[in-house]
Amino acid sequence: MTASRHSLADLATRFGLQMRGDGSQSIHGIGTLETATRDQLAFLANPHYRAHLANTQAGIVVLREADADTRRGACLIAADPYVAFAKIAALFERTVAASPGIHPSAVVAASARVAASASIGPFCVIGEQSGIGEGAVLGAHCSIGDRCHVGAQAHLVARVTLVRDVALGKRVLVHPGAVIGADGFGLAFDKNHWIKVPQLGGVRIGDDCEIGANTTIDRGAIGDTVLEEDVRLDNQIQIAHNVHVGAHTAMAGCAAVAGSARIGRYCLIGGGAGIVGHISIADKVTITARSLVTHSIVEPGEYSSGTPIQDNRAWRRNAARFKHLDELVRRVQQLEKEAKQ
Amino acid sequence: MTASRHSLADLATRFGLQMRGDGSQSIHGIGTLETATRDQLAFLANPHYRAHLANTQAGIVVLREADADTRRGACLIAADPYVAFAKIAALFERTVAASPGIHPSAVVAASARVAASASIGPFCVIGEQSGIGEGAVLGAHCSIGDRCHVGAQAHLVARVTLVRDVALGKRVLVHPGAVIGADGFGLAFDKNHWIKVPQLGGVRIGDDCEIGANTTIDRGAIGDTVLEEDVRLDNQIQIAHNVHVGAHTAMAGCAAVAGSARIGRYCLIGGGAGIVGHISIADKVTITARSLVTHSIVEPGEYSSGTPIQDNRAWRRNAARFKHLDELVRRVQQLEKEAKQ
Amino acid sequence: MTASRHSLADLATRFGLQMRGDGSQSIHGIGTLETATRDQLAFLANPHYRAHLANTQAGIVVLREADADTRRGACLIAADPYVAFAKIAALFERTVAASPGIHPSAVVAASARVAASASIGPFCVIGEQSGIGEGAVLGAHCSIGDRCHVGAQAHLVARVTLVRDVALGKRVLVHPGAVIGADGFGLAFDKNHWIKVPQLGGVRIGDDCEIGANTTIDRGAIGDTVLEEDVRLDNQIQIAHNVHVGAHTAMAGCAAVAGSARIGRYCLIGGGAGIVGHISIADKVTITARSLVTHSIVEPGEYSSGTPIQDNRAWRRNAARFKHLDELVRRVQQLEKEAKQ
Repeated sequence: MTASRHSLADLATRFGLQMRGDGSQSIHGIGTLETATRDQLAFLANPHYRAHLANTQAGIVVLREADADTRRGACLIAADPYVAFAKIAALFERTVAASPGIHPSAVVAASARVAASASIGPFCVIGEQSGIGEGAVLGAHCSIGDRCHVGAQAHLVARVTLVRDVALGKRVLVHPGAVIGADGFGLAFDKNHWIKVPQLGGVRIGDDCEIGANTTIDRGAIGDTVLEEDVRLDNQIQIAHNVHVGAHTAMAGCAAVAGSARIGRYCLIGGGAGIVGHISIADKVTITARSLVTHSIVEPGEYSSGTPIQDNRAWRRNAARFKHLDELVRRVQQLEKEAKQ
Repeated sequence: MTASRHSLADLATRFGLQMRGDGSQSIHGIGTLETATRDQLAFLANPHYRAHLANTQAGIVVLREADADTRRGACLIAADPYVAFAKIAALFERTVAASPGIHPSAVVAASARVAASASIGPFCVIGEQSGIGEGAVLGAHCSIGDRCHVGAQAHLVARVTLVRDVALGKRVLVHPGAVIGADGFGLAFDKNHWIKVPQLGGVRIGDDCEIGANTTIDRGAIGDTVLEEDVRLDNQIQIAHNVHVGAHTAMAGCAAVAGSARIGRYCLIGGGAGIVGHISIADKVTITARSLVTHSIVEPGEYSSGTPIQDNRAWRRNAARFKHLDELVRRVQQLEKEAKQ
Repeated sequence: MTASRHSLADLATRFGLQMRGDGSQSIHGIGTLETATRDQLAFLANPHYRAHLANTQAGIVVLREADADTRRGACLIAADPYVAFAKIAALFERTVAASPGIHPSAVVAASARVAASASIGPFCVIGEQSGIGEGAVLGAHCSIGDRCHVGAQAHLVARVTLVRDVALGKRVLVHPGAVIGADGFGLAFDKNHWIKVPQLGGVRIGDDCEIGANTTIDRGAIGDTVLEEDVRLDNQIQIAHNVHVGAHTAMAGCAAVAGSARIGRYCLIGGGAGIVGHISIADKVTITARSLVTHSIVEPGEYSSGTPIQDNRAWRRNAARFKHLDELVRRVQQLEKEAKQ
């Protein structure tokens, strides 16, 4: 696999960017401002890294117009350098060359339909009444249960499990270890023991969604668990039964959403954040890392919970005081009362 | 698979419930109060959803006697409508019709014993001296290590790994991606590097337990990690070595229990809650979502930690103050002292 | 498998420990102070368990010199009893007797190189240009993508996925369900939808690292995600793209590290702790369980966040007050101002 070479002028034309410098200068890979060589392209989006611009060895830098004057060498000017970089970097992606066809080791049920252009890897299992769309790729060890649908051009990297009654849209990308469509956690307490509440629904995942490694999405108890289009889930996320996630919402690693919660469109859910069950979150809400949402949020905005990290000894003293915070407020009230007299 | 039809009178008799309305009215599926059609049964348990009772299209509703007068159509009256619903809904479960026998692709060790009525799916591996009980079902890609036992009627949905020395009781249900019996995290620091502490124990899981998708339960260092009967674990739960969980305790998604902790019977551990090692929790303790338990709890009751979710700007101001809470208390003490003079 | 018997005198010689008691006394297994029989060895390291020393039935106890006088029976004296115990317990490990060779069901790419002494289990898949070192063991269901290297004597217990461009050092131990080298979570927001930022780097894991069950380590966006040697990760840990973890650092279950964070050497990261992206943590930093690190830490030491567990009713009152903590401080300031007048 030889990485192709791209000139400044070519990149400017191809991605509709303004250029500065020698148009014939070319690169054949990417790097960070700190690590890139003369043969590589780097970008500056996060102001945190601006200090590296002066000393970078990168042959070409993608940056905002405001930063262009600081740059001595070749550069490409973009309104959003990170978006431009993402598109340019795709030129260097080593693509999976999955050849169409079903690996001889795969076990495919008689009633399953696999498109001729789909690629089914070693040791895959496909259940009854399931379908795999045109151009879809299933890596090794995928297990597709009964009544599932994998959309056209979807990519299940490896070892993905769709338990049953799961529909994935077009171009959905699922990383290894993800489990979609397992039983929701439905229990009823019958006098002295638990009985299981049947989980009769499914999971519907819209076009262009991405599901991270070891993420779990349970199927609905009644009705479906739903991700609208372009929802992006990082690794180890837990989505409980009957959750509904609006289009274009992204969640960082280890976030968890409890049953029947409804999350809006264009939300950003931080790493490890939690959302309790049966609540709603409006569109365009940001939840910062590790916050716990315990009630519905109706206004767009940024929300947080928790306390700051501190030296353990200071923290211990403060944390001990938190246990008596209500009493402290009452004492201040008393002082205020006395002061007024 | 045609869903069967059940009349109000039949349901009342079968489940020992009082009925109101036309006994010949029948349903062939279930729904929520909001979504159910005339051909479906719904239930009202959570008062949160009471407002939907007046407008539901459901043919039959299961509810408490106190709510029955509000219901105009057919209904079934139950002391616990959720329990009654769980039992009725089971009529509509599309059961796994696993046929007995070992899939030709499975790799079974010579010394393993598999009951004739058990079903072993494609690409399963069963190790030395392990046994699979009567009627047990192993879906695709299960890996059963050495010296494991899978109890009668147990169901490993797919891709479940029992590493070694794991015993599952009868009717245990394990969801995909679960790893039971991996090494506990035992390390000793030897001058300038870690050495591994051998993990010589196993895991014992009682009858009727349920283990969620991608949940991990490590085997003991010395002696076993134990779940008593009817313990219910949701997805992505972490149970460390030598933990002991009492019967009928349920844990919601992403809860984590550190080594040698001992949890009582009938406890409810909220989503994402954490329990540190070497402590005990009494019977009938509820830990709310995301709380961290750092010391033993000896009284039944409900326990919590954390701070409430807030608009980020307000939260930042308050969180900054938390760092000086101890000092604030001292300032109030000083004011009180001065006020007394 | 018959466990061997070891005498007190033999153990003292073999492990360089001082002994007290009858040198011919022997044990053939291990136990805790509470559970050990006369035929077993136990240890006392955690002072928490000192009370059990007087009544233990253990044939031999490993302990510190300071505790030796309390012990009536045979004992071994060690500067660090836990380290000594770890080494002795290894005598009783039931080792995996993996025989060299490739299981006939495994699918190995033409360009992959597998050392003759390596053992490749059932249903493993090995991709193009990948290599498996001398004495390495891959249990069932491992999936090794393209351009990966598994070091000599490494052990992938079962169902481990290396996605692509992953290099594991010598003696690396990886537990089931781990996913190493999946795409980092790189997204750029392009007007009204997400576009994927290509993840062009890899993962490098040093010698003697241990990776827990269902842990995920993403490959770098540009450059690699790196674990230096002897890093120890428990189960369900999430390591995002381009994280760098220093040698000998250990993380307990469910810890999570966001993208491009840099963690020092000899750090201890508690269970469920979180570290946000693009920050640095110095060497020898301890983060207590469930704490969230939101800024760089430059000094060694112990750090914490969160609030203590409390009875829910007390907690609710205190938590409600937290929402107005800043206002409370201002009220105290006002009182102080008035008091000064």
